[in-house]
Amino acid sequence: MDRVLNRLDQTQNQALARLFEFIAVKSVSTDPAFKEDCLKAAHMAKSFLQAAGFEGEVAPTTGHPMVLGKYRSKASPDAPHLLFYGHYDVQPVDPLEEWTHPPFEARLLEDRVNGTIIHGRGSSDDKGQLLTFIEAARAWYEETGDIPLNITVLLEGEEECGSPSLDGFLAERAGELKADFALICDTLQWDKDTPAITAMLRGLASLEMTVTGPNRDLHSGMYGGPALNPLKVLAKGLGALHDEAGAVQVPGFYDGVEMPDDQLIAQWRASGFDEAAFLSDIGLSRSAGEKNFSVLEQLWCRPTIEINGMWGGYMGPGHKTVIPSKAHAKLSFRLVAGQEPGQVIEAVKRFLLNQCGPEVRVEFSDPHGSQAVAFDLGKPHMDVARRVLAQEFGRAPMMLGCGGSIPIVEVFERQLGLDCLLVGFALNDDCIHAPDEKYNLISFQKGTRAFARMIGEFGQKR
Amino acid sequence: MDRVLNRLDQTQNQALARLFEFIAVKSVSTDPAFKEDCLKAAHMAKSFLQAAGFEGEVAPTTGHPMVLGKYRSKASPDAPHLLFYGHYDVQPVDPLEEWTHPPFEARLLEDRVNGTIIHGRGSSDDKGQLLTFIEAARAWYEETGDIPLNITVLLEGEEECGSPSLDGFLAERAGELKADFALICDTLQWDKDTPAITAMLRGLASLEMTVTGPNRDLHSGMYGGPALNPLKVLAKGLGALHDEAGAVQVPGFYDGVEMPDDQLIAQWRASGFDEAAFLSDIGLSRSAGEKNFSVLEQLWCRPTIEINGMWGGYMGPGHKTVIPSKAHAKLSFRLVAGQEPGQVIEAVKRFLLNQCGPEVRVEFSDPHGSQAVAFDLGKPHMDVARRVLAQEFGRAPMMLGCGGSIPIVEVFERQLGLDCLLVGFALNDDCIHAPDEKYNLISFQKGTRAFARMIGEFGQKR
Repeated sequence: MDRVLNRLDQTQNQALARLFEFIAVKSVSTDPAFKEDCLKAAHMAKSFLQAAGFEGEVAPTTGHPMVLGKYRSKASPDAPHLLFYGHYDVQPVDPLEEWTHPPFEARLLEDRVNGTIIHGRGSSDDKGQLLTFIEAARAWYEETGDIPLNITVLLEGEEECGSPSLDGFLAERAGELKADFALICDTLQWDKDTPAITAMLRGLASLEMTVTGPNRDLHSGMYGGPALNPLKVLAKGLGALHDEAGAVQVPGFYDGVEMPDDQLIAQWRASGFDEAAFLSDIGLSRSAGEKNFSVLEQLWCRPTIEINGMWGGYMGPGHKTVIPSKAHAKLSFRLVAGQEPGQVIEAVKRFLLNQCGPEVRVEFSDPHGSQAVAFDLGKPHMDVARRVLAQEFGRAPMMLGCGGSIPIVEVFERQLGLDCLLVGFALNDDCIHAPDEKYNLISFQKGTRAFARMIGEFGQKR
Repeated sequence: MDRVLNRLDQTQNQALARLFEFIAVKSVSTDPAFKEDCLKAAHMAKSFLQAAGFEGEVAPTTGHPMVLGKYRSKASPDAPHLLFYGHYDVQPVDPLEEWTHPPFEARLLEDRVNGTIIHGRGSSDDKGQLLTFIEAARAWYEETGDIPLNITVLLEGEEECGSPSLDGFLAERAGELKADFALICDTLQWDKDTPAITAMLRGLASLEMTVTGPNRDLHSGMYGGPALNPLKVLAKGLGALHDEAGAVQVPGFYDGVEMPDDQLIAQWRASGFDEAAFLSDIGLSRSAGEKNFSVLEQLWCRPTIEINGMWGGYMGPGHKTVIPSKAHAKLSFRLVAGQEPGQVIEAVKRFLLNQCGPEVRVEFSDPHGSQAVAFDLGKPHMDVARRVLAQEFGRAPMMLGCGGSIPIVEVFERQLGLDCLLVGFALNDDCIHAPDEKYNLISFQKGTRAFARMIGEFGQKR
């Protein structure tokens, strides 16, 4: 094990070079303009896997391809079988002008708080995190000529755009993806010095809406007054989603919501989480969430409605005195255990239809949904992960919730019947999905070392 | 007079060719990308004036240039002096995909309701309308070698973007612009068969606002709940501007509002205006304006607040689970007699600041304002206009209000002390400021003939 960890330390520059090369590929999956870049990123990931001794495959889907890697241990063919999941696609980079350095030209920068950081789109979410695992496997393979574990790697190219091809792909290839458990690397540490295991994930549902008022754009002088303005209707409807105490006012929205057990809530309360610092870091002084819940509870075990985008009318320079025909919004809902995505979407639709009134036409499109998940913390692979993270970081990992959805977890559980283990090395200030995304170099270092340890220990008899 | 009218009829194709050439110049004043096109349109307008016997000048300003034309009657040097105003700039054409024909390639089309129409951006507002006058003057000049009136023509290039250079230009050239009264051609007929004189105009104020919540774009999973979403704040604030009865809820907004005298209101009520048809034409079934006023009153003598544009977050294809840092809106206010633009803007700012609350930063920019105007209907030039329009159209003109602002009227009255006469030949279904703008060919024909008659009659002893 020490030899493998030493090799990781000694070959770090080569690992970083691979990550920089990976970041340079603009694999923005949600925008069809980047289709070729996604394909290129898939082939690059395959080559990284091959260099680590894996059999690699770029597998076509109805959308962006999957990357599959297979390693069967020579020395321990009966070792447990791990399915590793990551995604090679990234979020759009707009607003581009807010990046201090080009998003696709990765570089090391010095940061006062975080020390050395890796800057670039995908450095953390999820190119940096998935390479953290592949580099650990590579070090085992290069140093010992073998990996003491059976591993299947599945890298998706549509995580950032709702995974439209995933279900079909898994259904088709389920036999090859059988494993004892899944390891997913797309989550957070507790802080830059403390590792974490994710104990629960919020689900995600989303919806786009278009409100049509007049049958054409109108001059606000010639029609202003009697003509219904769909921007007003949209604003009024969306403005009614929450009450003054931050609670969602949609009837049925909270139906079935389950709270975690008291022990977990107690651990979070004892964590010393600094609400004021969390808010101040993002430029805010007060929580906007439900008044009777702590910030961690609001993030980890309470559902939300967000407006992710809203637009209509004239948005260019200068003025245009128009009453537009249409107004648009993109909404998403963070879900918790007990909520059904489909029911939430229907409840929100009913509420907004009612708010907008009969004089406008309201159309909803593009509904998606994934359920929230809570893990069984008593499984053996959970024990290994806890022990190994404590060894590498010198601190016991936090068992935390995650406000973000990782639909793959729900899919793995439902379609493949797999238990999941979520260990990640991202930080809250990594600016994922925003300008100036970064990944701490120390997270990459300790992350690869921790995964190398896990590969060794998962292979032991349990 | 008959010779002049005959000449107009016989040279119509040449007049249309000039209008088509004029429309082809993309003089979108609000967008700096079209600066050169605005200059080109100014020079073209000057050449049209010169062809009608005028001395022409393209006069630089701090923004787009003014076009000046001067004609001093040879036969009647003591005739009254008329200042004609129009504007050669046009509105942006977005959304371009909603035009059935390219906006800058004018053409004649056959329309079931309107007969032959002239299609293209500016065909009505205001290139078509201003040429309606210049062609009338040209016919006099070509047919008689003289025009029986002293005329100064002033064509502005910034009417659609708040006229930033107008005040300074008028202050500098006031001496040259002295006249007995002003004729402005930028308004409506009553219907396609009935001419009109505009008796009052609403004013216009506008304002842009930006709401900043978090200091950066955030992942809605990692921050959703506690993080204040500026799109929610903006929606709530704008959604509170109106009550359920369509009235503006901003304290002080209606301060000082004056209603027209009962006679005018009675004339409007007797006009047979078909509210249901008006609304149905734009795809609506009920008026969204203040409940206790008729549609014509809502349009002509009641103030409004409109949202002309609203945007923020992710607006591209697919989903992006972002809580944006900023949200934006463009607002405008139609004003009526008795309202002060500056006071209205301040009242709306106070209201929105209060609605948005202390946790966001609200910034206002780009405030503009012009007061509403009501004309003295007893002046001699009003009599001539009424008589001549009745002769040409075979129907007495309607004395109407106009919901749209023509800031030039307020400026002419305040800076030059000029009485204004507003006669125009546009129609409600001309789609000005919207896709598929058009101008009825019959409006262009009868309009030029009516103006030719006015030029003759204004020159008579009054």
